Amino acid sequence: MAKLKGNMLIAQSGGPTVVINQSLVSAIIEGKKHKEITNIYGSLFGIKGILDGNLVDLKKEKISDLKKVAQTPGAALGSVRKKPQDEECEMIFKNMQKYNIRYFFYIGGNDSAETAYILNENAKRVGYEFKCFHIPKTIDNDLKENDHTPGYGSAARFVAMAMIGDNLDNKSLPGVKIDIIMGRHAGFLTAASSLAKIYEDDGPHLIYFPEKPFVIERFLKDVDEVYKKYGRCLIAVSEGISDEKGEPIVSKFTKEVDSYGNVQLSGTGALGDLLADIVKRELKISRVRADTFGYLQRSFPEIYSEVDAKEAYKVGELAVKYATGKYESGSVAIKRERGKKYNVYYELVPLEKVAKETRGMPDEFINENANWVTEKFIEYAKPLVGKLPEIGVLKKYKVSL
Amino acid sequence: MAKLKGNMLIAQSGGPTVVINQSLVSAIIEGKKHKEITNIYGSLFGIKGILDGNLVDLKKEKISDLKKVAQTPGAALGSVRKKPQDEECEMIFKNMQKYNIRYFFYIGGNDSAETAYILNENAKRVGYEFKCFHIPKTIDNDLKENDHTPGYGSAARFVAMAMIGDNLDNKSLPGVKIDIIMGRHAGFLTAASSLAKIYEDDGPHLIYFPEKPFVIERFLKDVDEVYKKYGRCLIAVSEGISDEKGEPIVSKFTKEVDSYGNVQLSGTGALGDLLADIVKRELKISRVRADTFGYLQRSFPEIYSEVDAKEAYKVGELAVKYATGKYESGSVAIKRERGKKYNVYYELVPLEKVAKETRGMPDEFINENANWVTEKFIEYAKPLVGKLPEIGVLKKYKVSL
Repeated sequence: MAKLKGNMLIAQSGGPTVVINQSLVSAIIEGKKHKEITNIYGSLFGIKGILDGNLVDLKKEKISDLKKVAQTPGAALGSVRKKPQDEECEMIFKNMQKYNIRYFFYIGGNDSAETAYILNENAKRVGYEFKCFHIPKTIDNDLKENDHTPGYGSAARFVAMAMIGDNLDNKSLPGVKIDIIMGRHAGFLTAASSLAKIYEDDGPHLIYFPEKPFVIERFLKDVDEVYKKYGRCLIAVSEGISDEKGEPIVSKFTKEVDSYGNVQLSGTGALGDLLADIVKRELKISRVRADTFGYLQRSFPEIYSEVDAKEAYKVGELAVKYATGKYESGSVAIKRERGKKYNVYYELVPLEKVAKETRGMPDEFINENANWVTEKFIEYAKPLVGKLPEIGVLKKYKVSL
Repeated sequence: MAKLKGNMLIAQSGGPTVVINQSLVSAIIEGKKHKEITNIYGSLFGIKGILDGNLVDLKKEKISDLKKVAQTPGAALGSVRKKPQDEECEMIFKNMQKYNIRYFFYIGGNDSAETAYILNENAKRVGYEFKCFHIPKTIDNDLKENDHTPGYGSAARFVAMAMIGDNLDNKSLPGVKIDIIMGRHAGFLTAASSLAKIYEDDGPHLIYFPEKPFVIERFLKDVDEVYKKYGRCLIAVSEGISDEKGEPIVSKFTKEVDSYGNVQLSGTGALGDLLADIVKRELKISRVRADTFGYLQRSFPEIYSEVDAKEAYKVGELAVKYATGKYESGSVAIKRERGKKYNVYYELVPLEKVAKETRGMPDEFINENANWVTEKFIEYAKPLVGKLPEIGVLKKYKVSL
């Protein structure tokens, strides 16, 4: 293909993160450097904006504003959860043609990569000439081909910090505390709660993942043991925990699905309340509480990992470099170099390799009892999350008469 | 009374905050300066530690450790929710006598002030000679005699920041979002969510307080109006909202009470889920989510207001100064000077004036429709919370063909 000349279009899709705008801003700034890119447009609310002809001119934005946007949580262009149907693809290309879009970038998770893949395949079919790239983003950290994904480190930092605080709270007023953490099929974010444990008696004392069957009897036995030992028990539970048949525990209580067929797991306290009730009833423990960390995990301002913000910036910039280079399509993936020192490199991988299917926590990250992480996970996650706040504790010298 | 000579005892009670240890540490440091105070002991888990003879020697703690503890959330000595019975008071004085406790400081909210008051009255009755002080602490901001209370500013900062993030998230993926915020009888913390509103279309769009009856029909009408205007609606709801008869909406779902007779409001997602279901059903809006901010509001590390931390330190120090001065008992209260510039002064008030009864938001802080705050509240809360993070937004220059 000869060098394509035309306009660039960028959009955001799926659940926002606190660093998703880093990728948006870096792509805009990089886009400006390439002569073959004439205008830089943003589509509002993902592909919905292309369908509705709702585009904005991003070249007109001031650099000082863009720099602030990069540090602001949420999707600055708006987001969407929408899988394009064949007839919608045709409408999209019709509108892309109108706006002379030749470079398309879609920032999102695996569903968004699938959208990019569908568009790319349909473009070949109908003969629409454009370059189509996916820029990774997901707090779930569940994209294939990636060591980790932009958005994960910051959300993991929020979870670790929240758990540090909640451990101190639970230590102050002992009881059983259950914290529900995001992650549909992948336990990476829930696992990050382990970084909060500094001293031997610190929580979380138990962690449950969506990758392993959640057996209520085993859970109660675990809680009972910890409670007997420490007089309290702090538990991190993934919102996606499922029974032995693979049915999400929470799906017994809610039935809402999006157009990708995903059940609503977030934005409800049902799972935490259910587990708290069971613990209260079966173990006869009076103080049992549940919190669902909810959307704060992906949106809380100023709590972000510096490594994550830097990498989120990098993948946006690289996508534009690949697109204006020799590549036709693909998804930017983050790989980690082997060795003690944390170091990453980037690769362009085919869209279909990242689209739709996700990856979960590997077995080597989950302990034998499936109720805590392994040392390997801690090593994996620590550099992504950054240095955590220092905690002061009293030595508590006992007074004897 | 001649100058009492003996040991000092300090304890923490009620829900912890992120600055409660500031008061503990300042009281220890101040205590060391006074010759009439021989040893400085801490009681573990509030008055429970005195009953159990579970005291620690705080004079032995290193200053460098204490400084770290001051900045650490949670109650470093452990906390309790316990109202002493008459026979327990006698046991407490018996143990106090054993340890020669002549200066007693109890850090906590109104229930803790009541405990201090009960102890003080019983001491007079049985002739136990000690000085008894309450050091204020509560994220609810509901202590009488105080302009505001230590712990509030930091929790309010967390709420405002969480709401800034959640507004950006809700703007990205529009829908109705309900956030449940702590505050049993007082709406101050829920009201702090208003500080997140920067631009005209920002949320929270609606705020509901426990001080005004929550009428479901009015609530639905409010949500419907906002949703029609902005295509989304972000709502802050106090966990303590009650119906016209004064019955908490959530108490229809939970019946747990503590020894002060308080119903459990926190540590459950029930209220948010209930309201989300009603909105979904009655307004036929498909994307309705609820989060309960939960214990993170009072425990999240590194999110604190500098003003709040400073004042929490000050009240601990002052309590010891008052006690070693001419005063017999009392509660340290924070008062605000009139005038444009934020300035506070401190006063010692009688224990009974702070004990048991609480104060709610004054009418002048709540708007006429009882669904938002007034400008007066914003002026009141801003200096307590400190400067909030700057938010970047795109100008969104429309592309037209």
